[in-house]
Order: sequence, then structure tokens, then C-alpha cells
Amino acid sequence: MKQFAVIGCGRFGSSVAKTLYNLGNEVLAIDKDEEIVQEISEHVTHAVQADVMDENVLKELGIRNFDVVIISIGSDLEASILATLIAKELGVKWVIAKAQSELHGKVLSKIGADKIIFPERDMGVRVAHNLVSTNVLDFIELSPDYSIVEITAISEWENKSLRELKLPTKFGINVMAIKREKCINVSPYADDVILHGDILIVIGNTEDIKKIEKNAGD
Amino acid sequence: MKQFAVIGCGRFGSSVAKTLYNLGNEVLAIDKDEEIVQEISEHVTHAVQADVMDENVLKELGIRNFDVVIISIGSDLEASILATLIAKELGVKWVIAKAQSELHGKVLSKIGADKIIFPERDMGVRVAHNLVSTNVLDFIELSPDYSIVEITAISEWENKSLRELKLPTKFGINVMAIKREKCINVSPYADDVILHGDILIVIGNTEDIKKIEKNAGD
Ligand SMILES: Nc1ncnc2c1ncn2[C@@H]1O[C@H](COP(=O)(O)OP(=O)(O)OP(=O)(O)O)[C@@H](O)[C@H]1O
Ligand SMILES: Nc1ncnc2c1ncn2[C@@H]1O[C@H](COP(=O)(O)OP(=O)(O)OP(=O)(O)O)[C@@H](O)[C@H]1O
Ligand SMILES: [Ca+2]
Ligand SMILES: [Ca+2]
Ligand SMILES: [Ca+2]
Ligand SMILES: [Ca+2]
Repeated sequence: MKQFAVIGCGRFGSSVAKTLYNLGNEVLAIDKDEEIVQEISEHVTHAVQADVMDENVLKELGIRNFDVVIISIGSDLEASILATLIAKELGVKWVIAKAQSELHGKVLSKIGADKIIFPERDMGVRVAHNLVSTNVLDFIELSPDYSIVEITAISEWENKSLRELKLPTKFGINVMAIKREKCINVSPYADDVILHGDILIVIGNTEDIKKIEKNAGD
Repeated sequence: MKQFAVIGCGRFGSSVAKTLYNLGNEVLAIDKDEEIVQEISEHVTHAVQADVMDENVLKELGIRNFDVVIISIGSDLEASILATLIAKELGVKWVIAKAQSELHGKVLSKIGADKIIFPERDMGVRVAHNLVSTNVLDFIELSPDYSIVEITAISEWENKSLRELKLPTKFGINVMAIKREKCINVSPYADDVILHGDILIVIGNTEDIKKIEKNAGD
């Protein structure tokens, strides 16, 4: 079990804090807004009302003893930068900071943040990919070249077996799993037949997958 | 090629708009803030400065002709609700709206939004999962029971073949791909040996994966 501190409990920060706590971790949540502190207090180990612009606050809260500190203040650059600086100065090993722009991210990196995250930007990219074809439901970019996508079976694929479809040679994709209603087949055989409404989890070259996304969207 | 309109170009909306445009689609971006419109205009097909609180604006922009309208105004509930209502009244088939809370989401749903998204909340869940074990790099929840995760090979797995490891019987997971430096093996054989630093893409029962996450994090 690790000890986490989340500084700034907006929509992103509070979701991180609650999920970490639900996964069985010790979580300290800090926000300057009393109402937000009240709301989150039932969903974390401790919740404290404090303004990180007061330089002593993080020291007094013993922030140095936490394994990971997540700074999720988006709009107030000053507060986000100051909190990052102080957490690193106090000796926190792993400081993760939310940035609202590329420039903000660069500054946070320079002053020592170990990881920068752009939740809105990254989720925007995911949602856009999912929209381009209503067939693509979710995706992970494994590398600049390879992705995993969750895709509704294209109508031409229905009632054919994986062997007949030859997806690896024809489209450059491998089917890793087939979802049918509430059931997931995680080791599909060559003889398994695709039915209407099946959702396929496929892995393949990103360019090849894009071609399928485009065809599927028409 | 589909036609998309993005209303509200904050961090999330602008990322959706730019990505859709980069994927080859026609994108109209609308924001009430002139500076934001200037910035985004080079990255989309058209960018227009307009306030959706003016009820005629969406009609005059011909919003009914778009295949998908994404309303990504988070903080101003009134504007987000009004824009959703008007888009549906004008006959847009597919309206997606960003919500900032469960309640906001319910209201948007009731007035006809076809899909509600919670970018900060969902990314918070992802980031928290990734943090619990530094081994887990990314994950997709396929259903309440099954997930795909990208995970750094645990040290006990190193220098053993998949056949020896018996991951499906021992841990309830299947290895779908192995990343080694810049190379991805998307159809691993039973004889393939896991090396130090390999990243495995595995599919399995979410509870089983959580157990691995926890062990890996220690
Ligand atoms: N100096 C500070 N000390 C403590 N908490 C702060 C400070 N400044 C801002 N916060 C808190 O950080 C939280 C997130 O801030 P803000 O809403 O500006 O960011 P955001 O990136 O827009 O958030 P969201 O995740 O909701 O998109 C808020 O709850 C706010 O009260
Ligand atoms: N009535 C309106 N008409 C047009 N655009 C609007 C209107 N109200 C807000 N916007 C725009 O919507 C965008 C997003 O709004 P806001 O920053 O409040 O949401 P957010 O959810 O915090 O965004 P982010 O994605 O950055 O987290 C802003 O650029 C804002 O100018
Ligand atoms: Ca300030
Ligand atoms: Ca936000
Ligand atoms: Ca905001
Ligand atoms: Ca208002």
C-alpha cells in the first residue's frame, strides 16, 4: 500500500483521489475550497482545507512522507508551479503535475515534476478517434505505429469465421478477443464465427486500423 | 468524411477539434472567446466567434447540417444545456456533450444528448490505475469484468517462456503482445521468452489483473 497526496481536487484531482482510495491506498486530499474538502472527505483517508500559496502548508502536512504527490491545479499556474517546486524541495520522490498547456507542462518539467499529464488534451484525442468511426469504441496507442482498438464488427465480416476473414493478411490486424453481449471470448479460434453486433478487440498497425475506421464510418 | 462542429474550445474541446481535423474531417470550431478562436483557426476548417446563449447563432451557422456536434462547455451549465437543447431541436442526429458532474450529465441526457462524456473523471480513473502499480502503463476496461492492460514484465517472469509461465492458468491473463524496445510482437508464441524490460499487453479478468497490479507495486 502506497501513500498518495492529491493537491487540488477539481474534477480530475477528485477522480484520481477517489479511485486511488477505492483501490485500497491511503490518500490525503488537499484543496483550498472548504466545500470541495467537505464533499471529498468521505471518499479518501484524510481531507484538509489548505492553500498551497502559503509556503509552510505542505511542510506542516508532512508532504515529504508521501510516496506520490499529484498536483492537479489546472487554471492557477502560480499555485501549480509553487506546489510542484515545494514538493520537490521537500524531497518527494514522485511528483506528478497536471498541465493546461504545452508551455505550462514545460515549466513544470523544468522545476522538477517527474511526470506531466494533460487529461483534457489526451481524452480529447481518444474521443476524436472514437468518433471518426462510430465503430471504434476505445483505443490504446501502444507506440507511434501500433494500437489496440475496440471495434464493432463491420457488416461484411458477419457470419464468417476468422479463418475465412484472413484479417491479419488482408488488414494487418489480429483479433485478440470477441465481445458478444455480456460474454468475452479472450482466446478466439480460427473457426469462431463473427455475428452481427459482435465487438472485436484488435491489435495492429495504426495506419491499417485508420483505414478500417474510415471504411467503417461510411 | 464526416462534418463535425465543436462548441466550446477549452482544453478538451480544442483537442477533439484538432484531432478530428488531423484525421481528415471537416471541423467547425465555435467559441465565444475571440482569442481562442484565433488560436484554433489554423488547426480546423472554420473557426467562428459566437455566443451560444444567443439562440439564433446555431441556426444561422447551419448546425443542422453537421453529422456530429460536440458540446464541450464544462463550467457554464446554462450555456451547455442551452446549446444541447438547440442542437437537438434543429435536428442534429448525434449530439455529444461534456458534463462536469453526474447531475449535469443527467440533465444533458434528459434533454436529448446522445452521449455524455466526463473527460476529467475518466482520465482520473485511468491515471489512478496506472499509478497503483508503476508496472501498469495503460488500460482499457472492456466490461465491468474484463480489461486490457499494458504492464512491465514482473521480475519473476524474466527469462521464462510463455509456456513455462502458464499465465492463463496461474493468473487468469492472456498475453496478446510483447513490446521490446521499438519492436512489437503481436502474435507471441508459447516458446517466446520474456526478457528484462519487456512490456506485455495482457487481457484478463479485472480482479485478476488488480492482484498482479498490487504485487507488482510492492
Ligand atoms: N492555491 C491553491 N491551494 C489549494 N487548492 C487550490 C489552489 N488553487 C486551486 N486549488 C484547487 O484546485 C482545484 C482545481 O483547480 P481548477 O478548477 O482551477 O483546475 P482545472 O484544471 O480546471 O480542474 P478540472 O480537473 O475540474 O478540470 C480546485 O478545486 C481549486 O479549489
Ligand atoms: N456561451 C458560450 N458560447 C460559446 N462558447 C462558450 C460559451 N460559454 C463558454 N464557452 C467556451 O467554452 C470553452 C470551455 O469552457 P470552460 O473552460 O468553462 O470549460 P472546461 O470544462 O473547464 O474546459 P476544459 O476542457 O479546458 O477543462 C471556453 O473556451 C469558453 O470560452
Ligand atoms: Ca494566481
Ligand atoms: Ca478541465
Ligand atoms: Ca476549468
Ligand atoms: Ca451562466
